[in-house]
Amino acid sequence: MRVLVIGAGAMGSALTVPLRENGVEVAIYGTEYDVELLKLIEKGEKHPRIGVSLDVEVFYPDELHEAMKKADLLLLAVSTEGVIPTFRRIKDDVDGKSMVTIAKGLLEVDGKILTIPEFIVEEVPSLASMVVAITGPSIAREVANKAPTRVVFSCEDYGAAKDVAKLFETEFYRVTVSTDIVGTEITSALKNIYSIGIAWVRGYEERKGGIEMSNLKGVIATMAIGETARFVEAMGGKKETVYGLSGFGDLIATFRGGRNGMLGELLGKGLSVKEALEELKRRGVGVIEGYENAKKAYKLFNLLKSQGKVENHEFPLLTGIYDVLYNNRDVGDVLYRIV
Amino acid sequence: MRVLVIGAGAMGSALTVPLRENGVEVAIYGTEYDVELLKLIEKGEKHPRIGVSLDVEVFYPDELHEAMKKADLLLLAVSTEGVIPTFRRIKDDVDGKSMVTIAKGLLEVDGKILTIPEFIVEEVPSLASMVVAITGPSIAREVANKAPTRVVFSCEDYGAAKDVAKLFETEFYRVTVSTDIVGTEITSALKNIYSIGIAWVRGYEERKGGIEMSNLKGVIATMAIGETARFVEAMGGKKETVYGLSGFGDLIATFRGGRNGMLGELLGKGLSVKEALEELKRRGVGVIEGYENAKKAYKLFNLLKSQGKVENHEFPLLTGIYDVLYNNRDVGDVLYRIV
Repeated sequence: MRVLVIGAGAMGSALTVPLRENGVEVAIYGTEYDVELLKLIEKGEKHPRIGVSLDVEVFYPDELHEAMKKADLLLLAVSTEGVIPTFRRIKDDVDGKSMVTIAKGLLEVDGKILTIPEFIVEEVPSLASMVVAITGPSIAREVANKAPTRVVFSCEDYGAAKDVAKLFETEFYRVTVSTDIVGTEITSALKNIYSIGIAWVRGYEERKGGIEMSNLKGVIATMAIGETARFVEAMGGKKETVYGLSGFGDLIATFRGGRNGMLGELLGKGLSVKEALEELKRRGVGVIEGYENAKKAYKLFNLLKSQGKVENHEFPLLTGIYDVLYNNRDVGDVLYRIV
Repeated sequence: MRVLVIGAGAMGSALTVPLRENGVEVAIYGTEYDVELLKLIEKGEKHPRIGVSLDVEVFYPDELHEAMKKADLLLLAVSTEGVIPTFRRIKDDVDGKSMVTIAKGLLEVDGKILTIPEFIVEEVPSLASMVVAITGPSIAREVANKAPTRVVFSCEDYGAAKDVAKLFETEFYRVTVSTDIVGTEITSALKNIYSIGIAWVRGYEERKGGIEMSNLKGVIATMAIGETARFVEAMGGKKETVYGLSGFGDLIATFRGGRNGMLGELLGKGLSVKEALEELKRRGVGVIEGYENAKKAYKLFNLLKSQGKVENHEFPLLTGIYDVLYNNRDVGDVLYRIV
């Protein structure tokens, strides 16, 4: 069994650790943005974002075809925005190989809003029962350092997810298998968005002179989980997925919210979206996935509304986040409207 | 309308703020442990635990009868261990007054394990539809300082909860009403216990040389929420209560876990229960409610098991916490057994 990891970022690189522990042959293929990382990996130096060196073969940008030919299973480990271009570059060589995805988010393709597995299956219908999505609390550096982790592998086909899970599962990297791939994907995509709203409170506390608002954090996070559950249900997924590792567990693990949290905190302080995004650029923080996703989620929400599957009043927080991000509403006003 | 708060601690004192904002007459009655606090309150000085001064009448320990006579509604604001003796002292004067409770936990009475509202109704059956329990994310200092808060008022009788809620509800202190008083009470009692297990991870990270284990925190917190939901269901409450403000919301607001968290962290570091409790005593930390409650919850769990309502394998974390607290098991061993 040979696995090809596509993308040399933190999470794809981290997942080579449990695979190698199981004796699976692993290679990493990197895009043009990954060349420096590939050189470090090849030399046996530590991957700077996860702090470990990797025992893998390396393929450079111009060696894609060769890399693909040797692989039995593909791990698509590019960022959300890299999924469409990268998948289209490899799709003719996919040829019956299982495909594992780790990026989270929604994609807009020909005006339609799709989850990443949905996009892949639209492009290559024969992959329908062969796309396995990994979700759950999974900070890459911890996986790479063998800190205990349990995640969810979801696939329409239970057996396929189970088979893939066997390749990854170790004493430190445990796997729960689910067939609710709609639920896990929507949950993970919305988490990036809702993390912005939860982080508002942190900024808002500062704006109000440092008064603590843990109670408010509890209220907002509860709304986030509740709205995610309604959204998942309207999409045909299972609420329980949201209350499990993919939703609740991931939220707890990344409670401060990473880049999405940084954006939310700045907005909570009272910066405009433009000012907050400029400040993040100054800090060297790139794409904010929750920001990009909020627009797509809102489109999907409007579609669900037009189909009579959800109602406006069920999503005050999502609407509030959209209003702050795209209609220049102030976080303070929104907080008082929705609590 | 006149409310008597029984107990001069942080939460009872904080709740006088929204009541007074609504023009409700409020008095605080204090026990013999509260005399110093009562003097401060009477002089208009700031309550040391919540940082605000209160606009209330004050009754001293020997004025209970007089205080009770003037009250239309009672707010029982003593600690969990104070509930039984305090309620028994006032029960003959309760006389059709509604009773609001804020302590969380389980009580052992004549070998039976009861929630606090169940105990009150056992003592005075006519209160069955007049006991209202407050649960949800509610840090006293924040309530007193009018930081935005939303809590749950639960009562068997929806109308009764609604009426009581009206007295408390302000722009800053919002209330959701629920009839699932079994669910809210069990959820809150278990939260104290599970907070110990979640905090293990913090101590365990340190024991392992400071390696971060956020993923593990996500896994353990998800188990806690899942097991609480199963427990509530077995007791006849609603799972949704656990996923709402009373469970998830409170967990987020008090994520570091207060006293229960301190105990859990010390156990995670590798201290024995005896050593950890001694260390907390040295730090001046009194009763650890989760520690006391774990024994009672475990008894209740065994009762549910004997009735065929739950099974052992559904509660690995509860069992693990009990094993650490009462069977001298090591946190590290338990973590690896259950993840």
